[in-house]
Amino acid sequence: MAETVEQKQEFSRGLEGVIAAETKIGYVDGINGILAYRGYDIETLTNQSNYEEVSYLLLYGKLPSEKEYIEYVSELKKEMYIEDDVYELIKKISRTAHPMSSLRTVVSYIGGKDKTSVDPDVKQQEEIGIKLIAKMPTIVAAIKRASSGEDFIKPDPELSYAANFFYQSAGRKPDTVEAKMMDTALILHADHGMNASTFSAMLTISTLSDMYSAITSAISTLKGPLHGGANERALALIKETGSPDNAEKVLSEKMEKKEKIMGFGHRVYKVYDPRAKILKGYAEYITKKNGQEKLFQTATKIEDLMVNRLGEKGIFPNVDFYSGILYYSIGFPPDVFTPIFAVGRISGWVARSYEYVQNNRLFRPRSRYAGEKAPRRYVPINERN
Amino acid sequence: MAETVEQKQEFSRGLEGVIAAETKIGYVDGINGILAYRGYDIETLTNQSNYEEVSYLLLYGKLPSEKEYIEYVSELKKEMYIEDDVYELIKKISRTAHPMSSLRTVVSYIGGKDKTSVDPDVKQQEEIGIKLIAKMPTIVAAIKRASSGEDFIKPDPELSYAANFFYQSAGRKPDTVEAKMMDTALILHADHGMNASTFSAMLTISTLSDMYSAITSAISTLKGPLHGGANERALALIKETGSPDNAEKVLSEKMEKKEKIMGFGHRVYKVYDPRAKILKGYAEYITKKNGQEKLFQTATKIEDLMVNRLGEKGIFPNVDFYSGILYYSIGFPPDVFTPIFAVGRISGWVARSYEYVQNNRLFRPRSRYAGEKAPRRYVPINERN
Repeated sequence: MAETVEQKQEFSRGLEGVIAAETKIGYVDGINGILAYRGYDIETLTNQSNYEEVSYLLLYGKLPSEKEYIEYVSELKKEMYIEDDVYELIKKISRTAHPMSSLRTVVSYIGGKDKTSVDPDVKQQEEIGIKLIAKMPTIVAAIKRASSGEDFIKPDPELSYAANFFYQSAGRKPDTVEAKMMDTALILHADHGMNASTFSAMLTISTLSDMYSAITSAISTLKGPLHGGANERALALIKETGSPDNAEKVLSEKMEKKEKIMGFGHRVYKVYDPRAKILKGYAEYITKKNGQEKLFQTATKIEDLMVNRLGEKGIFPNVDFYSGILYYSIGFPPDVFTPIFAVGRISGWVARSYEYVQNNRLFRPRSRYAGEKAPRRYVPINERN
Repeated sequence: MAETVEQKQEFSRGLEGVIAAETKIGYVDGINGILAYRGYDIETLTNQSNYEEVSYLLLYGKLPSEKEYIEYVSELKKEMYIEDDVYELIKKISRTAHPMSSLRTVVSYIGGKDKTSVDPDVKQQEEIGIKLIAKMPTIVAAIKRASSGEDFIKPDPELSYAANFFYQSAGRKPDTVEAKMMDTALILHADHGMNASTFSAMLTISTLSDMYSAITSAISTLKGPLHGGANERALALIKETGSPDNAEKVLSEKMEKKEKIMGFGHRVYKVYDPRAKILKGYAEYITKKNGQEKLFQTATKIEDLMVNRLGEKGIFPNVDFYSGILYYSIGFPPDVFTPIFAVGRISGWVARSYEYVQNNRLFRPRSRYAGEKAPRRYVPINERN
């Protein structure tokens, strides 16, 4: 274990290709474009299931019986409320903070109020996980409204998880398609292998820290544009392009300057991201409904050009390319896109942290030391150059 | 990159032995019992340097010139204050929250108020890092006082970093030995390879998230008893033992029940932890001064017995075994021990995150999938067992 001065070993930067854990939760086949949760393909799940059931599936490894489903949903509904002081905190911090910073602070704050977080056993970790899954839409919707200067809307126990999130955010109940669309987007974001935020949650809980801490870490990590911010930037690209006719010119200029084209390519997928495929259909529907066809047409034109140029190198649209348009078209401001991602991913974060902590091993890799050799002589300050 | 269904490869649980990054900052030789920062042995640094200089050294790779030192210290003094609303938040949350939860929330909250945290460039990451190094003692001392029901004490610009932390925590200025002791403890905790909290900070910043987020993750991770809580538990063991005469009996009982003896053994060190060696001397001095010799005598008796039994297996006292007695003896309540660890470690967290982000690569390992094979057939809920 010594970090010796001269280690000649090669290592994989960013741990690319390194296996960090074993899981039964999710499975990404980047070569064949398959994403499956507990063995169920995401196309099947988005067609036939809903977010609540998928959340249960990720956590417990099987589809719930009718009784288990009812119990799980009623637990989520019981725990979906946040207290007045949390709303006050959200109102206060949202004046200046980026929504992801606010989300990080709020989850941490709620954790501090929960006595079970001091030194939780595995059962308490699970319970905290469910509380967080339940509260996440309420928190994110409240942050969305506070940062837009709107009044808070409390959760409605009659609505589904996704519809409730839509309702508390938008201030109106979604129609059937909008509810299905939001449910689909949340399912598609629920889990995705050992991505950086999920890994971050697992790393935190591996010290036997608590689930609030794990999720706070995950949010902290998701905040970075290399992970969570891509759909915001992809939308900016599409809006900047403005119309299908400009796409060729805008892309060429960017590629000449070697700028990254946001919403394309993925470290895992070398084919069309299966999530993008599903969201593209909804994006087409909703932009048409809301009179924003041009946005969609511009996007598909960019896609065509990119795939023509780079498809054979495995560069295709990823989930972020169409999720941005979709959220924008239903009225979410771009800086809330990453918090919406967090609403979906909360189930994956909780499920993987919970799975890991049940068979725990502290994450403690090594670093390769490439610095000055010890012992260096200490030169007193008045003798230094 | 595919996470294929049947991966036969072995992997190292907890990433033990896996190299995750290259660094020029710190170097732990667990075989020879050496810990060096930028090539300077910690014995040299604790004898001849101070925390401010060590912080500069970790961050910039060299001992500062007189001019650089004066500038760095004056920057720290300029940034060491926290605003009234932060004190209010601390007062409010400390009524119920564990000090580590409070620390996590406060750092996140301060981050939300700083506009440079939205999408920082490398220079801004560095600046945020220095702000956090500067504010950490102020925040932790305020949490200590609020959770003990004491009034806040503001920083005194006349005092050194370590003396200021002592002063704001204890409510009185330290004598020369107490100040040196606190300075030494902070230096000894400033960096320690790719430990879980440091790795957590690096993982978070690797998405190009901001330094506040990175440090919030690190605190979340340090909160776990497998990482940060060991000195609290080691002290509890020593207090429970009560006197040297009981040590044999208590240890035998615990070892029969296969309980872990806290404060002994380390995944890296297979010899005497060089930090424990230095702290032991101070613990002897301060317990004597404060009429708590018995605590120290009990500790050394436990050490003798443990080393006799397990020394040849490489089990020796680690830094946590003597730091707990030391902090306790100068009046810190045990639940603030881990936040004190964070005050020391902040420089290592910042330095390693800053080093990493300058040559960044997103951390994105893989997991080995061992679950159900896709595609599983979706059974409608009313047909499930």
